[in-house]
Amino acid sequence: MRVRDVGEFGLIARIARRAARGAALGGAVRIGIGDDAAVLRLRRGEELAVTTDAAVEGVHFRWRTTPARLAGRRALRAALSDLSAMGARPLGFTLSLTAPPSLALAALEGLVGGLLTEARAAGCPLVGGNVARGAVASVTLAVLGAVRSGRALRRDAARPGDRIFVTGTLGAAALDVARTERGGGPARHLPPVRLASGQALARLSRVGACIDVSDGLLADLGHVVEASGVGAQLDVSRLPLPRGFARACAKLHLDPLALALAGGEDYELLFTVRPGGSGRPGGPGEATLSRRLGSEVREIGCIVKGRGVRGFDVRGFTHF
Amino acid sequence: MRVRDVGEFGLIARIARRAARGAALGGAVRIGIGDDAAVLRLRRGEELAVTTDAAVEGVHFRWRTTPARLAGRRALRAALSDLSAMGARPLGFTLSLTAPPSLALAALEGLVGGLLTEARAAGCPLVGGNVARGAVASVTLAVLGAVRSGRALRRDAARPGDRIFVTGTLGAAALDVARTERGGGPARHLPPVRLASGQALARLSRVGACIDVSDGLLADLGHVVEASGVGAQLDVSRLPLPRGFARACAKLHLDPLALALAGGEDYELLFTVRPGGSGRPGGPGEATLSRRLGSEVREIGCIVKGRGVRGFDVRGFTHF
Repeated sequence: MRVRDVGEFGLIARIARRAARGAALGGAVRIGIGDDAAVLRLRRGEELAVTTDAAVEGVHFRWRTTPARLAGRRALRAALSDLSAMGARPLGFTLSLTAPPSLALAALEGLVGGLLTEARAAGCPLVGGNVARGAVASVTLAVLGAVRSGRALRRDAARPGDRIFVTGTLGAAALDVARTERGGGPARHLPPVRLASGQALARLSRVGACIDVSDGLLADLGHVVEASGVGAQLDVSRLPLPRGFARACAKLHLDPLALALAGGEDYELLFTVRPGGSGRPGGPGEATLSRRLGSEVREIGCIVKGRGVRGFDVRGFTHF
Repeated sequence: MRVRDVGEFGLIARIARRAARGAALGGAVRIGIGDDAAVLRLRRGEELAVTTDAAVEGVHFRWRTTPARLAGRRALRAALSDLSAMGARPLGFTLSLTAPPSLALAALEGLVGGLLTEARAAGCPLVGGNVARGAVASVTLAVLGAVRSGRALRRDAARPGDRIFVTGTLGAAALDVARTERGGGPARHLPPVRLASGQALARLSRVGACIDVSDGLLADLGHVVEASGVGAQLDVSRLPLPRGFARACAKLHLDPLALALAGGEDYELLFTVRPGGSGRPGGPGEATLSRRLGSEVREIGCIVKGRGVRGFDVRGFTHF
């Protein structure tokens, strides 16, 4: 069966049914799919966070190498990552879908199924959408979240003296892309969801800036220092790498550090913490932050006066 | 100059600059373009309304026949129409853009310029977005609004006895499409913005259901009666047609009533009002509603028990 066999309204009805099935609309949804717009409730003292992201066939995924469900799951996780980086709790999302009429319905439904799986897990229901004919398949998501007034995590809030931390590990997404491109089988990497960590971070009193690692650690740290008008020193020897990463990279003749520094799509949280604080001269350390955030946290450098990102390891400094 | 000459980040920077220039960020925007997500403030006692809409080259517009700015203006007006139909005031919108690298930058900037023109007029600033390579150009918008808690206008709230009204006129958009398709020159129709009317409607105490006329009057009235579990009788002789419409249709051998009933993209408000009320046995009439809504309003039928939409004129009843 092809997309053209069910048509636009048929497709919408199928998606709406699947979204309703076992989706348990979040408490925030007053009017969900089916009206001109969805209506969502925020709690008192909350502000709205909104972000949009797209996954386009041929650019972000390929039917030949990306399982359809995985493409859908990744698409929502990528968008949710922006909410995590603001410290927001998810409220719901809208889906704007394009598909060529000749596309196998199973592929499209796999994609949507992947989105809905992640939506359920994150408590972020599908609340509305739109379907159009297109030359390629694409999903464009607008994800809505709520954050305590004035407590959204920002990328422009780093200050000299802040210590730089990152959750989880870096490089696995880039390795997966390289392996797939070299004929090593279909894509299989699924990035983490750091929503709980982001919300915990927004409750900390000593947090500085925060961003999610989507363009790659160096690029995203670059965004932070540029927006904040500061510089950064990165201790490259402390980058958290996945287990077995060096060996897997060696097999493909890849530089593990290059992947961890510039790979992108890690969707970890990169954040800074002010030094000092109650009783601790340096502020909270890795163990405290890991416990508070519910994710492994690694300290990887510090914010300095100046501009740009410099890396150092046992051999000395490098400008990136 | 082509899209590829400025690249993804160049394009984002150009759009962000234009959005900032004279855009006067609405009072709702706490964090605009440039962070992981935008943060918007609602007023106390308000809920969030969200809707998404896409305009895809080759489906919703054609470079050959639709001036780029007009395509952009229409795209935002179409999305704002959904907010109007909920009775919401606009807060801001996100833009997810796809473009082929070979596209003339001027075309894309015309499209974005059209969006921003309407954004300024509606007080609905661009707060975030996303750019991706695509086989064709497309803009996908998520538009955010605020509505007083529990006062959103719904399509499922029509009751037997309600009188049916519509703002403005019907058929001009369909006529413009027909004229363009038959070689009558580039598209030029720009649908109305009914935001103020929708908000006024949401303040009325006797309003029933509301929807915007996007699929065509019959289809959208069909959505209302289906969602509400009722039927409707439409007085076809009372449909509000644009000035000179019959003559323009005759020139193209088109049936004016067919365009007004089924044409679509009129983006007028179709709503029902409960009968009776203080001092008036039939409830407010056209004059009162036109004054309150700030748009011409025409009474075109009534809601009845049963199912489906029946039309009547001097010749009798027809089932659609």
